[in-house]
Amino acid sequence: MDLKAGGFGNSGRSDDHAETPEDIGADVVTNRRNVLANNSSLHQAMHEDVAPAPRPNIVIMLADNMGYMDPGCYGGGAVLGAPTPRMDQMAKEGLRLTSFYSETQCTPTRAAMLTGRLPIRTGMALASETGSNAGISPEERTLARVLSDAGYNTAIFGKWHLGDIRESEPQNMGFDEFFGLLYHLNSYTQSERIGFDPRWEAGEPLGLVEAKKGENLTEVSPLNVSSLAYVDEQSMERALAYIKSQSSSADPFFVYIPFVRTHFPSVQNPRWAGKSSKGPYGDGLMEMDHHVGMVLDTLKELGIENNTIVVLTSDNGPTLDQWPDSGFSPFRGGIGTTYEGGVRVPCIFWWPGMIEAGRSSDEIICTLDLFTTLAVLGGGEVPADRPIDGIDQSEFILGRQENSNREWVVWYIGTGSAANTIPAAVRWHQFKVHTRAYDSFQGPESYYGQIPAVYNIEMDPREEHNIAGEHDFVISAFTKIYRGLVASMIEYPNTPSRAYPISAGAS
Amino acid sequence: MDLKAGGFGNSGRSDDHAETPEDIGADVVTNRRNVLANNSSLHQAMHEDVAPAPRPNIVIMLADNMGYMDPGCYGGGAVLGAPTPRMDQMAKEGLRLTSFYSETQCTPTRAAMLTGRLPIRTGMALASETGSNAGISPEERTLARVLSDAGYNTAIFGKWHLGDIRESEPQNMGFDEFFGLLYHLNSYTQSERIGFDPRWEAGEPLGLVEAKKGENLTEVSPLNVSSLAYVDEQSMERALAYIKSQSSSADPFFVYIPFVRTHFPSVQNPRWAGKSSKGPYGDGLMEMDHHVGMVLDTLKELGIENNTIVVLTSDNGPTLDQWPDSGFSPFRGGIGTTYEGGVRVPCIFWWPGMIEAGRSSDEIICTLDLFTTLAVLGGGEVPADRPIDGIDQSEFILGRQENSNREWVVWYIGTGSAANTIPAAVRWHQFKVHTRAYDSFQGPESYYGQIPAVYNIEMDPREEHNIAGEHDFVISAFTKIYRGLVASMIEYPNTPSRAYPISAGAS
Repeated sequence: MDLKAGGFGNSGRSDDHAETPEDIGADVVTNRRNVLANNSSLHQAMHEDVAPAPRPNIVIMLADNMGYMDPGCYGGGAVLGAPTPRMDQMAKEGLRLTSFYSETQCTPTRAAMLTGRLPIRTGMALASETGSNAGISPEERTLARVLSDAGYNTAIFGKWHLGDIRESEPQNMGFDEFFGLLYHLNSYTQSERIGFDPRWEAGEPLGLVEAKKGENLTEVSPLNVSSLAYVDEQSMERALAYIKSQSSSADPFFVYIPFVRTHFPSVQNPRWAGKSSKGPYGDGLMEMDHHVGMVLDTLKELGIENNTIVVLTSDNGPTLDQWPDSGFSPFRGGIGTTYEGGVRVPCIFWWPGMIEAGRSSDEIICTLDLFTTLAVLGGGEVPADRPIDGIDQSEFILGRQENSNREWVVWYIGTGSAANTIPAAVRWHQFKVHTRAYDSFQGPESYYGQIPAVYNIEMDPREEHNIAGEHDFVISAFTKIYRGLVASMIEYPNTPSRAYPISAGAS
Repeated sequence: MDLKAGGFGNSGRSDDHAETPEDIGADVVTNRRNVLANNSSLHQAMHEDVAPAPRPNIVIMLADNMGYMDPGCYGGGAVLGAPTPRMDQMAKEGLRLTSFYSETQCTPTRAAMLTGRLPIRTGMALASETGSNAGISPEERTLARVLSDAGYNTAIFGKWHLGDIRESEPQNMGFDEFFGLLYHLNSYTQSERIGFDPRWEAGEPLGLVEAKKGENLTEVSPLNVSSLAYVDEQSMERALAYIKSQSSSADPFFVYIPFVRTHFPSVQNPRWAGKSSKGPYGDGLMEMDHHVGMVLDTLKELGIENNTIVVLTSDNGPTLDQWPDSGFSPFRGGIGTTYEGGVRVPCIFWWPGMIEAGRSSDEIICTLDLFTTLAVLGGGEVPADRPIDGIDQSEFILGRQENSNREWVVWYIGTGSAANTIPAAVRWHQFKVHTRAYDSFQGPESYYGQIPAVYNIEMDPREEHNIAGEHDFVISAFTKIYRGLVASMIEYPNTPSRAYPISAGAS
């Protein structure tokens, strides 16, 4: 039985590839459709030769701008002045992925995770600024909607950053409950910066808000340099209360906890100030680590840990431009870049009794796959009427197969939505191809001209030695992937971006 | 009871420090002498409130130029295309150190490990070239001598690189048996390089040699681009045979295995060629990993693993100038530099039943400490007639104290031997001070002028942000350490280097 839902030409290690771009696209879409036609029986079929499992509760914890090497279990922790015992413990009890990829910044990663679709398809490839009146299309089928339709209760506690127009707010995109904030964290401190005139703000941005499904947002409290310190604490209080209230429900739950840590500015919660030897960033990381532990502890206390899958990851790499208020990656670059430092992030899966404790894997997997994998595990229906780029990795995650179903990851940057938009980068096996790249959000940019750059990221993890000349077979693979994507975007046109191209990397 | 043997003013977290340089030196030396006067009872006393343990067999495995992040248990392994399951397993069964420091290159690290003395004291701060007629002074009391005098049988299988004059050869420096090679690996391929005229070589260097205590060296086979592939395999065969032959002996053994892996050129052993996806370097790393496992397996098969302490470390960071025939560090720089990439190396202690399995520590410890710690554990006599910079870390290693006895590490580079020679760098707590530094063996050099550079290596692991201006207290600490060292070198003059200052970093 073929479980490779979605994946867009990526799923098949043994696929036969057609030769023209149109054929490639059609072949892929056909593959996907065939799989998805049987989607409702996927979960059941998956378990047919092992003990049947109830649909698990699902918890996603998403760190903001946490670097690959920040957690101790990825080489940092105490080494970088901020121990992370709870994340390390989570890795010991679960599956630690070392080639897990996010998008290059907040908004596209969140969009990719909740839709399973490349941000260029959903018009969400760039973060929007406050007041830009942008947001995710109400036509998108988010993971919250898919799981909600499958009988899950759903809630989000934390940072949204997928738009501020009414129909794009979380309580209108599939979540039963929302408590949190709409924008990137630093937007809430604009009015306190030197030289800022409060008359320019015109009531934006909103503060900490809440709403139940379909309601209008209510402001709970304003956000500023003082109150930012307590956002995660407040979100956590509500998240834990929600989980406790759900534990007696007959329906499973999906809780999405997008922390405001470790995004700058790391305004210290006084209970954590000085706990690390790394300053505010490290203190914030340790606070977040503590919150990760609280979630796992609560699941154990409620006795539902064997029926709850928890995922912890980060939306992108560290904000190097903000040093010392930033994390660390052993790789090149940080947020806003397609170099490894920008997109290779920690990711831990945890499900006691179902996911082998202490497993580690360097297989390629990405944020898009969270959508498809969790939808499948939850018995939800992966949309069949649009391209889904996320791949079902449930067999891999559960240890029933050693390999990921993914051979490559593609990144688009900017507001371009044309079908022939050139991807900024692709990881394919141990290689990375770049057509243009930035060392950090704020540059400098490397434009690689007519010949894309090729790096071997196992031999050269800091992407310093461009080996395109002797590795044109990698560029051939890139071209093939690109042609397939073009074909699918001709068949299913992308949603134009509503963001204005004012962020780094706009094109 | 004070167990801090050696350490040169470093050992006492609670020491009172005198105020003049002479007093500091005197104070330290007095401290050391007081400790060492009771040295013969150290081992017994250490165990007085726990079950007495027999003196363990001691095995040191030393990798050549392996980078901090090469092993999987330090973040690399499969991530970098070369899985290291045996080193990872060793870490799971033992103690993994994440702030362990070597010297900046082969020779000084080997000298520091075998003497417990700063390479500037022994004249061994620079690697010597073939035919330079240099070597370690026969006056030095090596770990092999100390343990030999304490009743150990001793042997070395692998790379020496502490000199080629007769009295400096290993069979004359405390080892009962020697099989291996005298120089750095690439010296054996000189005669096969383009443009080399064999008439220039005049019989140097020697090949694979062997000798028993006091004998002249015998050449077993020549070394060249073909035969280099098999050196570790041949050494390992003899090392394992030696360990097996020793297991029935009433005396404990000390076996020193300085691998030729992973020094360039990584001439592939055909049995390992292509096993990694990283090319010859990765294949060599995997071969070495296999050999590490063979040693541990043999100890277990013989049933002596509970009475054998095994240490695995590297002599310095990766040879970045040789990419792709090089390892990787997440830190700045490689071999030849005092940046973290040059001197922060993997180090795993393994002693089932005595060292807690799976422990990890970021406490500062260094190669010098191996001498003192292993001498103490073996009941050997740490020399009391000369400054010993290594500190006894046995209580820390055995988990009887959480902290290392070391607060700082100092590095000297070059052939200078004057007492007031300025150290190239010091790590002190989470800070690094540099007076001059090289990004790689072959430069470029940063000379920091009149104000040393200060980096916070927890916040800034790649040493990019010089914060000397706001951290003059770190420079004060550096100055205090420097003054103490000057005083001791006035009292005990350094042995002048016999190496010619032709290597990078010579001064």
